[in-house]
Amino acid sequence: MSRAARANYREDVAGRANVEDTPELLAYYDQLENLRAGALWTVANKIEPWQPQSSSVPVLWRYQDLRAHVLRSAELVSPEKAGRRVIYLNNPGRKDVAAAVGWLYSGLQTMRPGELASAHAHSASALRFIMEGQGAYTIVDGHKMTLGANDFVLTPNGTWHEHGVSAEGTPCIWQDGLDIPLMNALEANFYVVHPDLQQAVTHPVGDSTAIWGATALHPVGHTWDKGYSPLFKYQWEPTYEALSRYARVTDGSPYDGVIMDYVNPLTGGPVMQTIGASMQMLRPGEHTKAHRHTGSFIYQVAKGQGWSVINGQRFDWRERDIFCVPSWMFHEHANASASEDACLFCFNDLPVMKALGLYREQALAENGGRQAA
Amino acid sequence: MSRAARANYREDVAGRANVEDTPELLAYYDQLENLRAGALWTVANKIEPWQPQSSSVPVLWRYQDLRAHVLRSAELVSPEKAGRRVIYLNNPGRKDVAAAVGWLYSGLQTMRPGELASAHAHSASALRFIMEGQGAYTIVDGHKMTLGANDFVLTPNGTWHEHGVSAEGTPCIWQDGLDIPLMNALEANFYVVHPDLQQAVTHPVGDSTAIWGATALHPVGHTWDKGYSPLFKYQWEPTYEALSRYARVTDGSPYDGVIMDYVNPLTGGPVMQTIGASMQMLRPGEHTKAHRHTGSFIYQVAKGQGWSVINGQRFDWRERDIFCVPSWMFHEHANASASEDACLFCFNDLPVMKALGLYREQALAENGGRQAA
Amino acid sequence: MSRAARANYREDVAGRANVEDTPELLAYYDQLENLRAGALWTVANKIEPWQPQSSSVPVLWRYQDLRAHVLRSAELVSPEKAGRRVIYLNNPGRKDVAAAVGWLYSGLQTMRPGELASAHAHSASALRFIMEGQGAYTIVDGHKMTLGANDFVLTPNGTWHEHGVSAEGTPCIWQDGLDIPLMNALEANFYVVHPDLQQAVTHPVGDSTAIWGATALHPVGHTWDKGYSPLFKYQWEPTYEALSRYARVTDGSPYDGVIMDYVNPLTGGPVMQTIGASMQMLRPGEHTKAHRHTGSFIYQVAKGQGWSVINGQRFDWRERDIFCVPSWMFHEHANASASEDACLFCFNDLPVMKALGLYREQALAENGGRQAA
Amino acid sequence: MSRAARANYREDVAGRANVEDTPELLAYYDQLENLRAGALWTVANKIEPWQPQSSSVPVLWRYQDLRAHVLRSAELVSPEKAGRRVIYLNNPGRKDVAAAVGWLYSGLQTMRPGELASAHAHSASALRFIMEGQGAYTIVDGHKMTLGANDFVLTPNGTWHEHGVSAEGTPCIWQDGLDIPLMNALEANFYVVHPDLQQAVTHPVGDSTAIWGATALHPVGHTWDKGYSPLFKYQWEPTYEALSRYARVTDGSPYDGVIMDYVNPLTGGPVMQTIGASMQMLRPGEHTKAHRHTGSFIYQVAKGQGWSVINGQRFDWRERDIFCVPSWMFHEHANASASEDACLFCFNDLPVMKALGLYREQALAENGGRQAA
Repeated sequence: MSRAARANYREDVAGRANVEDTPELLAYYDQLENLRAGALWTVANKIEPWQPQSSSVPVLWRYQDLRAHVLRSAELVSPEKAGRRVIYLNNPGRKDVAAAVGWLYSGLQTMRPGELASAHAHSASALRFIMEGQGAYTIVDGHKMTLGANDFVLTPNGTWHEHGVSAEGTPCIWQDGLDIPLMNALEANFYVVHPDLQQAVTHPVGDSTAIWGATALHPVGHTWDKGYSPLFKYQWEPTYEALSRYARVTDGSPYDGVIMDYVNPLTGGPVMQTIGASMQMLRPGEHTKAHRHTGSFIYQVAKGQGWSVINGQRFDWRERDIFCVPSWMFHEHANASASEDACLFCFNDLPVMKALGLYREQALAENGGRQAA
Repeated sequence: MSRAARANYREDVAGRANVEDTPELLAYYDQLENLRAGALWTVANKIEPWQPQSSSVPVLWRYQDLRAHVLRSAELVSPEKAGRRVIYLNNPGRKDVAAAVGWLYSGLQTMRPGELASAHAHSASALRFIMEGQGAYTIVDGHKMTLGANDFVLTPNGTWHEHGVSAEGTPCIWQDGLDIPLMNALEANFYVVHPDLQQAVTHPVGDSTAIWGATALHPVGHTWDKGYSPLFKYQWEPTYEALSRYARVTDGSPYDGVIMDYVNPLTGGPVMQTIGASMQMLRPGEHTKAHRHTGSFIYQVAKGQGWSVINGQRFDWRERDIFCVPSWMFHEHANASASEDACLFCFNDLPVMKALGLYREQALAENGGRQAA
Repeated sequence: MSRAARANYREDVAGRANVEDTPELLAYYDQLENLRAGALWTVANKIEPWQPQSSSVPVLWRYQDLRAHVLRSAELVSPEKAGRRVIYLNNPGRKDVAAAVGWLYSGLQTMRPGELASAHAHSASALRFIMEGQGAYTIVDGHKMTLGANDFVLTPNGTWHEHGVSAEGTPCIWQDGLDIPLMNALEANFYVVHPDLQQAVTHPVGDSTAIWGATALHPVGHTWDKGYSPLFKYQWEPTYEALSRYARVTDGSPYDGVIMDYVNPLTGGPVMQTIGASMQMLRPGEHTKAHRHTGSFIYQVAKGQGWSVINGQRFDWRERDIFCVPSWMFHEHANASASEDACLFCFNDLPVMKALGLYREQALAENGGRQAA
Repeated sequence: MSRAARANYREDVAGRANVEDTPELLAYYDQLENLRAGALWTVANKIEPWQPQSSSVPVLWRYQDLRAHVLRSAELVSPEKAGRRVIYLNNPGRKDVAAAVGWLYSGLQTMRPGELASAHAHSASALRFIMEGQGAYTIVDGHKMTLGANDFVLTPNGTWHEHGVSAEGTPCIWQDGLDIPLMNALEANFYVVHPDLQQAVTHPVGDSTAIWGATALHPVGHTWDKGYSPLFKYQWEPTYEALSRYARVTDGSPYDGVIMDYVNPLTGGPVMQTIGASMQMLRPGEHTKAHRHTGSFIYQVAKGQGWSVINGQRFDWRERDIFCVPSWMFHEHANASASEDACLFCFNDLPVMKALGLYREQALAENGGRQAA
């Protein structure tokens, strides 16, 4: 780096670095650089910001914009050539890591009846949320489960998994969510293709739900030492019923309405070690207050229509739209309907924030808790 | 104690005490006794048995024998005078502590429409399992829930609780289960009568189920630091459905058929710190193998008919009968019907055994795993 | 039981049972008894006391009274015949279960140089606290450790263990502490004599201390899944140093002076699942305030002299004396010296109380927190 | 991005993306880009590597090269202007984030007698390891502790902390270790300057060690709910003694010799939620085998001299040198002395790897487990 190009991050605040460049210092910096070192005070204010500065920007991806392109991918490339036919969401601030927000990847995948992806395993934790179509299924470590719209399914870190659509089905589209970027950033990403390309179904279809999907009842004698939920599928219908029942006895969160986390039934903790998920209901006419917190969040509109204000910018959404909230940006949600509820599915890296002691939250105090948008 | 009366527990086995009484020793023992001491070798073999020797005996209580007496209690005593109108089950080996088996208490309680017991709290953990009648309800720390047959409800250690039957209901009978004897033995039993005798209902009726009764979904922002489940009611219908679903994908336990534990949905652990509970289904014609384990167990027949062999003794049971299995006694269960399943509700002190590292289990090896009865 | 003999536990308090015996009721009670049942209201007030009523009494065992008898046991019986030469402490209220207090057993054991007890294992958790002599050692699951005065050593639930005194040593006396009575009460006691009567030493002598005895440093790659501490020996010298250092920066507990718990270094929890232990220092002239709590406690005076007031009764103690505090009895301690500190070793069943959610504590409010003794 | 510039990551392996660019596809890619989206198959092989590819390179920083520059910083800038006078270590592969390796920052800081840095707090977890000088001290949340060579001290996430050298001391140099880069990457970094610039010492000096620094003894009644150790200082002398004792009873790790982790004495877990640390001893002449694992590691030579082979490259080191091992690179260590042991201090992000389920380890199988260097 030439001397002229050295950035200067001086701040005139007690306790912060505020050193003026001098020829002597610049020479000193060059000497340090030759030793693979540097003077902290030249970068301290940059690497120790007062608060998080997300490199992601808020984005809304409209399903009506993307759907045709997703379906077209099935005409353009074969599953054998493409591996998976996925249109991924690319945050303008995170193009270098192919992330939708922060360290989270998301894409829309399509499959035609009778198609089947090859089985693989990776360090990234993954999930899919079904958007449309009949006959989709997923196999995780030999456990097969069938899927319908708004069903949420896990394919956790290290599991063999593959997706398909039965021959009797219709073209399907779902949202994939993974933390591939995080795994790469942490330099901990392994990838394996299944030696047979497809795995055998070695358990009765739907057994994960039959074994672990009961309310507060656990099978005796089944042990489980994995870091993720033994329940792989979270169905829409009981989820919506649960939210509806809960809505009758709660005032809800001022920031999120009636919100429930999908959990690992064995521990009450998050569904996977690095990705959490929730479903929330905005009651007719509900407009929440704004808060901000650490962590990156990707929402899909599972039901209804409305808008969210993120970092002062309004995003109008309807069913199947996807949007993201970057770390430490204020956000609030509103249901546009006076008669119907609206539901938002969300996945996020909250388990990472909490496991590392980094979760922080702050409500907007001014303007009655609402952002000017 | 006179010298003549001293018991002698000698065993002629290496490593065990085998000291003959002599006049010199007997005089020595008397001296020790005056010092509030004794010689270990005189009692060692007694207090260190080779394996557990339960002081309880297996018992079956037939509902047809007890029901009329239970109902008659409502004619004989008023709730005000009796506190609760309960006929308790008294194991012949545990009369001194009013236990049904081991350190577990159980009784059959009745209430008439419009009646209401006074509210109290105690260190004992408690549960009730509804046997018959309409309109029963329980209030736990201001949370009211309505109850039907085969519903299972918790009133944990330290909670204010009271039971009643609505004016529109019918006479109700339920089984109470508590660990009063254990609390007394551990010298840790506290009892308080509610200052108002009745507590107010301070939450929407059924809110515990609405909040915590969803499948693998938890409300966001509800914290809970108690040692017991925030879900107080476990309903029969979803429980039976869960067992039926699970039965379709499992071979079941060789000793217990299709068995599930009621759990704390927040932790996956037992419903209370000192009492656990399970429901098991014996499929048509199923006859399990025998095993034995530490812990004391009380069963109620929730559905069907059959028999159990406990410590070599056969007990035939039908719906609503209650029986117990003492610690470390072999037991096996059989469904007498070739077409209908049978279901056994059970509560036990397994959480105590496990929390203290004392659980041990052993299968019967001989005779194909079946006891001669 | 004849009708005349039925006890009556009536209380004239709202919410408590208060049913007068009538001929009709007495006949009813007889009928119930024939069905192995009873009417709860006849015993409710007895089995649900307002607060714990310990069946133990406070006792002080003077070492000067017991020492000669302990040593004499070595003349009266051989180790082969006696198993172990132990004088056990027998609380007048707990003679039926050979307990020193509550469900805790304690005894004074002696061995001569060159003697060695046979190896065994049992469900009871055990400890020894060395009182006098040179050359004592213990072997736990092949780990041998040498012991000196005031050293504290564990022989946990399920481990093979044996004690001995080296040929070069002197006669040794130590205190044994076990929860044999609790294991019997819980009907979970197993006992096994080692097949070879003696076990081999399979690890370097003292390895447990070398591996796990460092301050806040753990060996990498050693796994441990037991419910008890991998550190078996807690030496007196570092313990006393630790108390002395801690005393310089703390005001101490108003009830216990400067007190530290012996812990499992892997978890920070109690040394064993059912027995905890502590060492406390009363500073010169210190006289603590009284409190009471659930749990049973056995103290040995490791250093100094003073007195304790237990349930209003004063017990004066000096080095090596042993005394007990039953559950829920007020107790306070005083150091009789104005210049020397006094130290009390204690073992107790607090881990049981805490694992089961039964710990409660209460300070004495009146009289400046001191009992009249 | 112009079409010509699109990278192509095709792999001719079943299960991997292998799609040839065509004009139609390139046009499609442009359309997607306009929608803030992309085709996964164009980047899949890049973002899902077969195994971790660290962007860091192995580096050795020689103390003899850096020391004069570090001391010179005290002449060039004042503490007031610089904040802290630190020369940070800049991995050639991680210049963009000022990291020494992976997401870990490290620097060498100097202070003169009587100097004192301003107090601040941040989300980054931090530690210092003393290299030379007398009179250094650190204050953490009002707890002051004095420090000598090879002492290791924590200033955890969220604590107020400041460093100084007493007026009677000598110029001091120490190594700082932090995870500033990780905090920034996770967009969770907060920074606060203490309102008074200096914090008061509110506890007796050294109280953290006096309270929590005992072997397997915990003060009763001190609660702690933080995610980091309450013991802030780990002294060299007892650490070296612990390693020496442990060395006498262990064969050690084939990859690391005699190695111990610094732990949180309350939990047995890592010292902080995001940074772990260890000290290891290479016995005279010891040359370990190679292995690799996920996670980033920074070593300082606390004693002795030798060399390490990292990813096939040999680095010779002597006391006070610092080197790093990036994720998933093979490494082995050798002590160059046949008579003296060598000790390596290490800090790393293993707690992150383990909390997120990402730790993997692999031994080198070929060539007797040694890399050709």
